[in-house]
Amino acid sequence: MSLLTVGSVAFDALETPFGKTDKIIGGAATYITLAASYFTKENNLVAVVGGDFPDEMISLLQDHGVNTEGLEIVKEGKTFFWSGKYHEDMNTRDTLITELNVMEHFDPIIPESYQGTTFLMLGNTVPATQKLIIERMTSRPKLIMLDTMNLWMNIAMDDLKAVLKMVDLITINDEEARQLSGEYSLRKAAKKIMEMGPKTLIIKKGEHGALLFQGERIFFAPALPLEEVFDPTGAGDTFAGGFIGYLASTDDISFENMKRAIIYGSAMASFCVEKFGTERIVNLTQEEINARVQDFVNLSSFEIQ
Amino acid sequence: MSLLTVGSVAFDALETPFGKTDKIIGGAATYITLAASYFTKENNLVAVVGGDFPDEMISLLQDHGVNTEGLEIVKEGKTFFWSGKYHEDMNTRDTLITELNVMEHFDPIIPESYQGTTFLMLGNTVPATQKLIIERMTSRPKLIMLDTMNLWMNIAMDDLKAVLKMVDLITINDEEARQLSGEYSLRKAAKKIMEMGPKTLIIKKGEHGALLFQGERIFFAPALPLEEVFDPTGAGDTFAGGFIGYLASTDDISFENMKRAIIYGSAMASFCVEKFGTERIVNLTQEEINARVQDFVNLSSFEIQ
Repeated sequence: MSLLTVGSVAFDALETPFGKTDKIIGGAATYITLAASYFTKENNLVAVVGGDFPDEMISLLQDHGVNTEGLEIVKEGKTFFWSGKYHEDMNTRDTLITELNVMEHFDPIIPESYQGTTFLMLGNTVPATQKLIIERMTSRPKLIMLDTMNLWMNIAMDDLKAVLKMVDLITINDEEARQLSGEYSLRKAAKKIMEMGPKTLIIKKGEHGALLFQGERIFFAPALPLEEVFDPTGAGDTFAGGFIGYLASTDDISFENMKRAIIYGSAMASFCVEKFGTERIVNLTQEEINARVQDFVNLSSFEIQ
Repeated sequence: MSLLTVGSVAFDALETPFGKTDKIIGGAATYITLAASYFTKENNLVAVVGGDFPDEMISLLQDHGVNTEGLEIVKEGKTFFWSGKYHEDMNTRDTLITELNVMEHFDPIIPESYQGTTFLMLGNTVPATQKLIIERMTSRPKLIMLDTMNLWMNIAMDDLKAVLKMVDLITINDEEARQLSGEYSLRKAAKKIMEMGPKTLIIKKGEHGALLFQGERIFFAPALPLEEVFDPTGAGDTFAGGFIGYLASTDDISFENMKRAIIYGSAMASFCVEKFGTERIVNLTQEEINARVQDFVNLSSFEIQ
C-alpha cells in the first residue's frame, strides 16, 4: 500500500565523542523514507529544500525508490540546517545551530498523484503545518501517524492538541509523554494522551526500548543492547520509518501487526546509530534486516512452562 | 532444592509522596526470603537482629516457611535501622538515617543444618562478610548469587573484586555496572564484569526492566508499566528472591530457565512496589503470581511471520 511522508529534508552537521561531520543529508523525512524504502515500494515524499541542495542527494533518495515529485526546490532559498553536539553519554545533546531557512514558510503541496494514499506519516514539524496537510488530503488515509516534540508543547500546544484530534497514532519519547499529559507514570500518561485523540500511542525510550499502547493493551519492545552507539541522530525517525513502512507493506493495522512493526522499526533504528547520519541505513540488505530482527526475537523470547 | 540467604534483617522508616511509615520490617534478606517463599520450601536464613526486634516479625517470616535457626538475636544490641525519603519521581531517594547497630560486627554463623545448601544468595552487605560466608560453606553450592551496591565499589573495591571471583552470578543496577566496569555501554560493561569472575550477570534497570548476560547470550526482560509506584523499597531484593527461589524450586540453572526466573522475579518486584514495605508480598496467592506472570507474557510476546 502507498505511504506518504511529509517532513523535513535538511543538512545536519554532527559532533559526537567519536568524530564530527561537515554538512550531511539529514531531516526527519529523509530518515523516514529511507527506512521505509526497505519495506514499501510506493514511498512518496513531500518536503522543501533550497537551491543549495545537491542533486546527488535527491538521486540518493530516488535510488531507494523514494518518489520526489513532491520535493519542492526553492531555488533562491537555503536548505534547513541543524547542527548539534552529543554529550559523552550520547543520551543528551546541545543544539549548536538551527537555521529554518526554506522550512520557515513551508507550504506543503500534495501532488495529485499522491492523493488517495493509504498511510500518512507526519514527520516532526510545526503542528499547524501537520494539520494543513491532513486537510489537504482529498480522502482520509487508513492510518495517520504523527511525530512531534517538546518544542511544540512549549510554544504551540493549542495547535498540537487540534492536530492530535485528527490522527490515529502518535510517537513521542517518555519525557514528552510526561510533559504532554502532566503525568509521571507512563501508563497514566498514555491513557490521557489517548483521550486527546490518537487511539494508539508509541512511547520511545531510546536505549530502554519502546512501549505501544492501544486502549487497555500494552506491548513492550526491547532495544538491542549495543556495544557502541556511534551517532543517535535520526534513530527516532528511522524507527518511525521502519514501523510505518512495515505497516504499509503488510496493509494490516491490527495490534498484533503493530507489535511486529515496532520490532522492524527498532531493528532499523539499531542500524542507524552504528554510523554517522544516514550512512548505515542507505546500505542495508534484506538479509541484514532479517538477521537483526532475529536478534530481537532471541533477545526477548522466553517460555513459561 | 535448598536455598540459603544471608543478608540484613532490619527496621525501615520510609517516606514517599504517598505517605510515611514508622519503623516497619525491612532489610535485604527479609525481602529475599519472603519472595523466595512462594517458590521454595527449604528457605534458610542467616542474619542478625537486636533485642528490640519483635517476636511477631520473626513469626511472620516463619509463617512463610522461612527457617530462622540462623537468625542471631543480640539481646543487648539494636537492630539495623535505615530511614529514607523518596523524591517525587520515585527513582531517586535520600538516606535520612543509617544505624548499622548489630550489623556492624555481624559474624555470620552457618548452622550445621544449613550446610550442603544447593543455592546460596548473598544479599547486599560488606563484601568481606560475603566472602567469609562462602569460605564457611563446607561444600560448594551449585549456584552462588551475589547482590552488591555502589557504596562497596567506593570503599571496598578490592574486597568486592575478591568475592566476585568466587560467585556464579551477580545482580547490580545499570549505574553500578557502569561504575564497576568503567564502561558506559552496558554490553561492554557486562563483558568486563563477567571477566571479573561471575559467568552470569543481571543488570537491573528499574522501570526499564532487566538484562541477563551469560557469555555471548543476552535476554531483555521488560518491567510491567504500572499505574502507580507506591514504594520502591525492597523491589530489587524481591526480584532477587523471586529469581533464586524459582531457580531453587526447579533445580535448573540453564540459561533458558534463568529467563523464566527473571520473569518470576520481575513479577514479584511488580507486586512489591504496590504497597509500603513488605505489605504486598506477605499476602500473595499463587493465582495472583501466575496471573501477573501472564501479564508479562502478554506484554512482551510477538510473532514474526
